[in-house]
Amino acid sequence: IDNAVAGDNKIKLTSPTKLPNATGFLWNSSMVMQVNCRGYVNSQFMQPEPAKYSYAPNMEAKSFIQPEHSYFTHHPGRFFYLKDEDSGEIISLPYEPMRVELDKFSFELGHSDITWSIEHFGLHISIKVNLTKDDLVECWFFSVLNLTEKTKNISIYPYFTIGYMSWMNQSASYNETLNAIVADSVTPYQKVTDYFKNKQFKDKTFFLSDTRPTAWHANQKVFEGEGGLHQPSALQAELLENVEARYETPVAVMQFKQQLLASEGKSYQFLFGPAKDEAEIAIIKEKYLGHRQRSQTEKSYRDYIAQSKACLTINSDCDNGNGTGNNGFDDFFNHWLPRQMFYHGDVNRLSTDPQTRNYIQDNMGMAFIHAQQTRKAYILAVSQQAISGAMPEGVLLHQDAQLKYINQVPHADHGVWLPICLSVYLNESADVSLLSEMIAFADSTAEQSFASHIELALDYLINATDHRGLSFIEQGDWCDPMNMVGYQGKGVSAWLSLATAYALTTWCDLCVEYDISISKQKYDEYRFAAQAINSAVNKHLWHGQWFARGITDDGRVFGTNEDKEGKIFLNPQSWAMLSGAANQDQQAEMIAAITKQLTTPQGVMMLAPSYTAMVEDIGRITQKHPGVSENGSVYNHAAIFYIYALYQAGQNNLAFDLLSKMLPSLENAQRTGQLPIYVPNYYRGAYHQLPKQAGRSSHLFNTGTTSWLYRCLVEELCGLKGCARGLQIMPKLPTTLKHLSGQRLFRRAILNFTIEQSSEVTAVTILLNEQKITGNILTNLQAGQHYQLQVKVAMTA
Amino acid sequence: IDNAVAGDNKIKLTSPTKLPNATGFLWNSSMVMQVNCRGYVNSQFMQPEPAKYSYAPNMEAKSFIQPEHSYFTHHPGRFFYLKDEDSGEIISLPYEPMRVELDKFSFELGHSDITWSIEHFGLHISIKVNLTKDDLVECWFFSVLNLTEKTKNISIYPYFTIGYMSWMNQSASYNETLNAIVADSVTPYQKVTDYFKNKQFKDKTFFLSDTRPTAWHANQKVFEGEGGLHQPSALQAELLENVEARYETPVAVMQFKQQLLASEGKSYQFLFGPAKDEAEIAIIKEKYLGHRQRSQTEKSYRDYIAQSKACLTINSDCDNGNGTGNNGFDDFFNHWLPRQMFYHGDVNRLSTDPQTRNYIQDNMGMAFIHAQQTRKAYILAVSQQAISGAMPEGVLLHQDAQLKYINQVPHADHGVWLPICLSVYLNESADVSLLSEMIAFADSTAEQSFASHIELALDYLINATDHRGLSFIEQGDWCDPMNMVGYQGKGVSAWLSLATAYALTTWCDLCVEYDISISKQKYDEYRFAAQAINSAVNKHLWHGQWFARGITDDGRVFGTNEDKEGKIFLNPQSWAMLSGAANQDQQAEMIAAITKQLTTPQGVMMLAPSYTAMVEDIGRITQKHPGVSENGSVYNHAAIFYIYALYQAGQNNLAFDLLSKMLPSLENAQRTGQLPIYVPNYYRGAYHQLPKQAGRSSHLFNTGTTSWLYRCLVEELCGLKGCARGLQIMPKLPTTLKHLSGQRLFRRAILNFTIEQSSEVTAVTILLNEQKITGNILTNLQAGQHYQLQVKVAMTA
Repeated sequence: IDNAVAGDNKIKLTSPTKLPNATGFLWNSSMVMQVNCRGYVNSQFMQPEPAKYSYAPNMEAKSFIQPEHSYFTHHPGRFFYLKDEDSGEIISLPYEPMRVELDKFSFELGHSDITWSIEHFGLHISIKVNLTKDDLVECWFFSVLNLTEKTKNISIYPYFTIGYMSWMNQSASYNETLNAIVADSVTPYQKVTDYFKNKQFKDKTFFLSDTRPTAWHANQKVFEGEGGLHQPSALQAELLENVEARYETPVAVMQFKQQLLASEGKSYQFLFGPAKDEAEIAIIKEKYLGHRQRSQTEKSYRDYIAQSKACLTINSDCDNGNGTGNNGFDDFFNHWLPRQMFYHGDVNRLSTDPQTRNYIQDNMGMAFIHAQQTRKAYILAVSQQAISGAMPEGVLLHQDAQLKYINQVPHADHGVWLPICLSVYLNESADVSLLSEMIAFADSTAEQSFASHIELALDYLINATDHRGLSFIEQGDWCDPMNMVGYQGKGVSAWLSLATAYALTTWCDLCVEYDISISKQKYDEYRFAAQAINSAVNKHLWHGQWFARGITDDGRVFGTNEDKEGKIFLNPQSWAMLSGAANQDQQAEMIAAITKQLTTPQGVMMLAPSYTAMVEDIGRITQKHPGVSENGSVYNHAAIFYIYALYQAGQNNLAFDLLSKMLPSLENAQRTGQLPIYVPNYYRGAYHQLPKQAGRSSHLFNTGTTSWLYRCLVEELCGLKGCARGLQIMPKLPTTLKHLSGQRLFRRAILNFTIEQSSEVTAVTILLNEQKITGNILTNLQAGQHYQLQVKVAMTA
Repeated sequence: IDNAVAGDNKIKLTSPTKLPNATGFLWNSSMVMQVNCRGYVNSQFMQPEPAKYSYAPNMEAKSFIQPEHSYFTHHPGRFFYLKDEDSGEIISLPYEPMRVELDKFSFELGHSDITWSIEHFGLHISIKVNLTKDDLVECWFFSVLNLTEKTKNISIYPYFTIGYMSWMNQSASYNETLNAIVADSVTPYQKVTDYFKNKQFKDKTFFLSDTRPTAWHANQKVFEGEGGLHQPSALQAELLENVEARYETPVAVMQFKQQLLASEGKSYQFLFGPAKDEAEIAIIKEKYLGHRQRSQTEKSYRDYIAQSKACLTINSDCDNGNGTGNNGFDDFFNHWLPRQMFYHGDVNRLSTDPQTRNYIQDNMGMAFIHAQQTRKAYILAVSQQAISGAMPEGVLLHQDAQLKYINQVPHADHGVWLPICLSVYLNESADVSLLSEMIAFADSTAEQSFASHIELALDYLINATDHRGLSFIEQGDWCDPMNMVGYQGKGVSAWLSLATAYALTTWCDLCVEYDISISKQKYDEYRFAAQAINSAVNKHLWHGQWFARGITDDGRVFGTNEDKEGKIFLNPQSWAMLSGAANQDQQAEMIAAITKQLTTPQGVMMLAPSYTAMVEDIGRITQKHPGVSENGSVYNHAAIFYIYALYQAGQNNLAFDLLSKMLPSLENAQRTGQLPIYVPNYYRGAYHQLPKQAGRSSHLFNTGTTSWLYRCLVEELCGLKGCARGLQIMPKLPTTLKHLSGQRLFRRAILNFTIEQSSEVTAVTILLNEQKITGNILTNLQAGQHYQLQVKVAMTA
């Protein structure tokens, strides 16, 4: 896409129409906002459950965040109408709702702010938003500069959507003391008990200004009038008429009439957010309004986001167009991916009951940033385990939190994740003390060691198998909507069986590597069970060229060539490679089948062909739209499992190729529709069925992909992986990537490294501070010390 | 309002901007649609719970219908873009979304259809919609006539909103076989059990045309493009590009390119609705598409709505401007009110669990239309009574129906309604056989007579009183949101105490009048209890000039002059007049207080001053917006109770004045914002606090007001009230209404009557078929016979 360029660590988009759905996102521990390039905003805060302060024009359902979010005229937004008082012309910034073509437009995503830089009417306009580290407030900064030699008269009208707040009570007016539009509402409820629950709700929305407005408007319908949002009637008059909203849809509009001499500039600061009462608004005003406050806030928020710095920075050939054709390859791995990973790990997708599998995997990513947080999360997770060994559906993060939505449906996979994801924590920290932490259970106060919790989870999984030795799927496994394969209690999952084998093997490997105390009997039992599962999967689920996905309650094997739709699923193949179920020949056949049937320009689809009609012994997944989410999209979480498995199998070229396809870039933005600041949970699949839509991003930045993608970068591509004795060096460069340098932070040692393919070597050759190392493990690295690491690997064919 | 005129039994509005929220409504037993003058539509159907087929642009919450519905650009609608191919100009009809000023515009509400008659571009355009008697389909008819002498080339583009159907699956395309746009979706769910529940859902939306389109479009976003809904990009091209929606927001747009010779006309028929599958759509097509089908459908739907004909038609001086200043007075009582009453009684507000009090009162209205239905409803209601005598919160009308929303909160009043409303059924039908019907209970199969059910309900009410003899309010009485007066089990309600007394008295009166068997002991007990309650209310709740509203859990009397807000409530005064608790002096004081504190140009407010902040020992009512709903609006259900009570107290002038204020009319439409085709559930109150908004209609046509309003007309104003011996004649004409004539259907006799104030008489004087009648009761009226009834009453001062 020619009009989007990278620079200054910012991603820039210079057209509001080329990627109309492009967004950036900002968050803190209490709120998140997704900001669209055209001025629309999705925002919510936690009290503790998600709530709004800028609402849709109707009563919107409370739900989890949906993919492919759709915008419409009255979608919540933050707009600035601007009137040239000399000519009477009006535009709206950044673009909506008037959609006037601007002389210059740039939407710029920084790590801790989002800005627009615009020129029109001979004015330069800059609009910027950031959050604060802790509070519930959007901080907006609007500045305008007269680029001409003539005096200009303008009016600026910030228009911030408040929307339909409540059928019980909604109103808004200008509060002179606060110099704010304050909207008031009562969250609708009907039961007395809810009154007490809701009592602390922040039911007000405020729009604070540092400048006293010339006039104001708080009534959406009257403001808009017959003109419509694209030509509001209220802007026809010289002054807004100071109209309040009384059980009418509120809006926050102010008018600032301003004369600008030649080259004169003027700036405004606005604060927008929810509050319980005027006193809270006054505190926010005091804390954040003003020049000093603004720079302090920007700094502290920048510092907060900067905590997302992870353990690796790279400088690759990819940037020079030699590797991936992705100019932002390094930038994405150095900044944007850690930022996204930190978001997941630090605030857990702003959910009060993250799914256990997400919680564990998201916190695996935190091990690369701040391992102490991973430790805490894993302890919290097992503290909610049942004494039976069963892991909960979701981890409750708040005392009033409840399992909601999909967490009310029983899934069989939650036990496999801890042993698998624990590797990364141990690799990064070598903190084996975690294993002997004593922790109670959800249903028992008797404490057992963390290691015992893991073994209880594994025992539970081993027992949850049928007569064939395959794992019951209940109403879903990793794949939530595969809910009718085994809802009658008999259906089994190939993937879950393999994941169980892999979890068992991983645990045994960890016990060996990190010298974790395990009884010989248990150890043998686990190794045996993993073998047995692999054998059972081979016996019952290998079908010609690949592994089937499972066996239904009625004994039907599915996910084979005999199916018309859902012939081949990605996950069983990936995990058969991980678990050791697939031998070399099988791996080759599987990879060939995947390459042929599942690979697309955006990566590997989760299944194909996508289902186009309900299959009653498979379930809800088959009812989803073809190519969307689990029904055969390029579901990146599944794709990254495959990539990780390919690395384990030594398929470095293929792994890198698919990893590159997964990454959003300026080059593929026109196809995906998103900017390269996060990896989305999916790209549309059904590549052969619906080619026109294929490749589109879900625009959802919540995804289990992040931590695995980063793991692939650190442990596999760069091959700088922790182990008991130190840092193991085993890069897996693809043929196209000849050279890679960077910095690895490892157990507080700092290693500046170069990795290159060299015809001079046939195996990994390592120089540490110019000293040759025997073997490929760096031992005795000292915290705080700087090292020069030079790695040469054999040329790949 | 100068541009709205009545005629042809139609209500016409000749501007799309004067009353932008004006609506008409159509319904059948399975669906309802509310049609806004500008082209927006709210529609839902029952499967059996309310569902949509034309959705908002986002995921809307499922809820009960809210007052003061707000429209916005992408609100569901039915629009017709029209392009003059010769000039390239485009307009949209009836008005939205382009809002182009039209040469002529008329929005016309008939009883069984809604039409627009429009002129522009030298074309006359007529748009018409009606429903069918039974099916789920909107029948649209679009005709265009070239009024000029020149050939015209036009394109017509019906644009029917389908909207955001589902995050699981949504798509739309043109189906050539059906000649329809068909949109497909899956109602979102997550639990397996819901799959089986949802399996029969009609998740498709179809738009069928009788004419093959030149081109079509099914993709909302693409259709609109950067132009916006007010100037869609897709209309710039000569032909629509036949674009489908694939997990994108669907829309139904067709293009019909048409040449019209001078004076040539062309018409199109469209069908729009939900369906389960293509087969259902094909059946609908067969059944309703075509000229013959159309006229049959219109006739059968007209016949269905014509069943709303009730027992009275009047011809009053009011029409001449002598009475009420309401030109549509007679039309409203003769047509629109019965139509609204029939809607309530026939389909019970399209709820599967109508609140018991609504169900009983709505079916009271049916006694004036089709008493057999009242009988059935009352039997159903008591069949869901508990053996304890407690009436349920809602009456379940469907085997899968569940108590929802407010019906999950315990209210104490449901027992009072049956004896009170039974009067009307007996007055109209004299069917005392109902009383001996044997009926079981919700929790017992042992059958008891209908009369015993009533007595059990009364016994339950008598027992649900405190040491003072006042009725516990639990979490509300008639006033739902007065939920914290007695939630701790001690608070009492003045209104409910009085209603209990009135119910007891009414039952005793009915037993006497209709010779219903009741034991002497019971009878005396009920009379005594009614007296005792009246005394207790007088002792504890009379405060100076009026009755307080109740006593809270903590013993605080509220609704008195000592309160700052909520000083005076209407209901206790009205029902003290009905129950006999208020003596003449008290009545005079109460009326004076109400006139001073509660009366507004739109009628009497329910309380004043409206609460502006939560009062924790009163509850949710105090959190509603001031002047809205129960918090001090002109809540017509309460207002009509007062009017009915005034008639009982002989306050005929005041009663008529308030009744006239309640009626929507063309004269007050500019203030209320609605057309005079239904009485709304409220007009905004808080008249002294928020005068600017006061008088606005809620635009909600679901209200318990209708049956009482009609009762006031029949039994009080006209004074043509049934009794055991026949028809009692006791008109209560106000001073301003000198003459009234009409037709009364009574127990299948047909009476053409005149009533006039005459200085020749001092008491009611009656001629039946020119024979003078002694007394004021017409006995021995024969079914099927026509009578001439002439009534003279003394002049009122």
